[in-house]
Amino acid sequence: MADTTTPLRVPAQKLEAFIARAMGAVGVPPGDARIIGELMTRADVQGSEGHGIFRLPQYIRRIKGGAVNVKPDIRVVREAAGMALVDGDNGMGHLVMRFATERAIEKAKDAGVAWVGVRWSNHAGPASLYATVPLAHDMIGLYLAVGNANHLPPWGGLDMLLSTNPIAVAVPAGEEPPIILDMATTVAAYGKVKTKAQRGEMMPEGWMMDRQGRPLTDPKRANEGFLLPIGGYKGYGLALIFGLLAGTLNGAAMGRDVVDFNADDATPTNTGHVIVAINIEAFQPVAEFKKSMDALIRDLRNSQRLPGVERIRLPGEGSHAARADRTRNGIPLPAPLLSALNQLAAELKIAPLS
Amino acid sequence: MADTTTPLRVPAQKLEAFIARAMGAVGVPPGDARIIGELMTRADVQGSEGHGIFRLPQYIRRIKGGAVNVKPDIRVVREAAGMALVDGDNGMGHLVMRFATERAIEKAKDAGVAWVGVRWSNHAGPASLYATVPLAHDMIGLYLAVGNANHLPPWGGLDMLLSTNPIAVAVPAGEEPPIILDMATTVAAYGKVKTKAQRGEMMPEGWMMDRQGRPLTDPKRANEGFLLPIGGYKGYGLALIFGLLAGTLNGAAMGRDVVDFNADDATPTNTGHVIVAINIEAFQPVAEFKKSMDALIRDLRNSQRLPGVERIRLPGEGSHAARADRTRNGIPLPAPLLSALNQLAAELKIAPLS
Repeated sequence: MADTTTPLRVPAQKLEAFIARAMGAVGVPPGDARIIGELMTRADVQGSEGHGIFRLPQYIRRIKGGAVNVKPDIRVVREAAGMALVDGDNGMGHLVMRFATERAIEKAKDAGVAWVGVRWSNHAGPASLYATVPLAHDMIGLYLAVGNANHLPPWGGLDMLLSTNPIAVAVPAGEEPPIILDMATTVAAYGKVKTKAQRGEMMPEGWMMDRQGRPLTDPKRANEGFLLPIGGYKGYGLALIFGLLAGTLNGAAMGRDVVDFNADDATPTNTGHVIVAINIEAFQPVAEFKKSMDALIRDLRNSQRLPGVERIRLPGEGSHAARADRTRNGIPLPAPLLSALNQLAAELKIAPLS
Repeated sequence: MADTTTPLRVPAQKLEAFIARAMGAVGVPPGDARIIGELMTRADVQGSEGHGIFRLPQYIRRIKGGAVNVKPDIRVVREAAGMALVDGDNGMGHLVMRFATERAIEKAKDAGVAWVGVRWSNHAGPASLYATVPLAHDMIGLYLAVGNANHLPPWGGLDMLLSTNPIAVAVPAGEEPPIILDMATTVAAYGKVKTKAQRGEMMPEGWMMDRQGRPLTDPKRANEGFLLPIGGYKGYGLALIFGLLAGTLNGAAMGRDVVDFNADDATPTNTGHVIVAINIEAFQPVAEFKKSMDALIRDLRNSQRLPGVERIRLPGEGSHAARADRTRNGIPLPAPLLSALNQLAAELKIAPLS
């Protein structure tokens, strides 16, 4: 019953299978294709629409263009008790980050805290996709990454040397759902600008600035300006620091070396990430920690509110709601996306999505 | 030559000695008093005026009030290869954090990355005071803390359950000075509000909001409102997450348990911190890393600039400039501060500052 206002809803399993078919068609081995399908679909299930199946045509284009290695030898190249450095061999970011996250969790069982850096990876979807994996092991997950396109200059500057370098942190609670922060260091992520452009809407002031320092509100003119960091020079500082930790420290791209993966289908990005697994048990009994979390979450939620505010939200509530809805009702696919996926199916000579 | 416009300049050694005398007078053992004097003075030397000798009268008042333990048994209470948990036994925060930072550096030599959590500490000065210590070992330092007074409600709320929970990260370079980010998760730190009030100046819109959600610009009315987080709900998320990692995880105060150390001279704060030491050598040759840092720093500094911007700044430049000036010319002490310190000297029956 798809029309422009009510997008078709598709069950997660169908998305997973379709992504795996597409990946298989361009040479990704079946087991890896299945993992990529699962992780990309998980992004859609948690409501990170800009980072799920929406990216599939671009991923396929870059694989076909030779920018991504479909049979990578993902491996640990340096290791100590509290850290590891993973070389992704230019594989799909989802495979590389899955490997790195498992490694971090394994190491944190003994080490208490394990920091795993990653180089020669690729775009891996939303930051929280990996930060949330340690939750099942009663661990906190912390993820940083260098974004795959520079839309941010240093504060006061014009050269776009920085990306929207995101952070995600997931912290388990007891009866309450986990706290999951997942944010870019810019006021708006670039994907939101693209969405505004597609919809023909204007952006609020504060998202972007033009090269004369004036507010830029027409998303169709986005390439005439740049994103603004949160808190001015503070967000610039955070974007820089997260980039140093996820990029420079790991020998991954940062600054002028960052490849714009939207505009380039042939050049490896050498994407850098960090995943830290923090084993709560190393600090205190897990049950005690979760009790403290529940109490704090309830205090925050039950705070008195500003006039006009209906309820206090905790970081992660949006994704919990999306997950509940989409697990039951399927994932909404807007008509333009569905048509792009059907076109992709035709090109790859695979069965369409539905 | 002190008058109200040109503050007296006092050499660092005199500050160190005076702080040590004051600490000694309230029962802090000589070796510890000297360390506190050094660390507090280092805050002034790097330009963190609100966190150096300015705090001495308050620290002494809290020691006299019984809120702080002058002979703490600071110790590691939990440990694994990649982490430790330090119990500060309610000692002066500077002593506790010095212990924790040394521990993190020692552990990171073997473990590559070491995460040290701290509980039962106290206010320890500016965040960068500890994040910068690993630099001398070719390590990156990362520090988080729970602030010692709640001035921030959850986003949309009125109950002040969060502090300005800061982050500091210090990253070494080669020929260039290190990058040092040191920031509160609010648009302005509360100290800046107090400074505005002292000077009889108004605050810009965006620093604070009143309980009706209107901009609050009169710093004398600060207690009728609250600070605003950077990037709205994003800064709220960061303040919450840093508080969970530095407070809740370590069994330290967070949320409603935070004691306002400005208003209370008798209650221990159970302040929580985190210091992470990241050994660059574990990831790549140090010389190579520093070369990459220099290149990136120069790219950022040489960026084209917005109209009217004279130069691009890197995080830490302000503190480097203050250090150069104050090492040579001494630390400027405004007349009201000098008079407060003289009064303290009289109360404690110790030799005055100069």
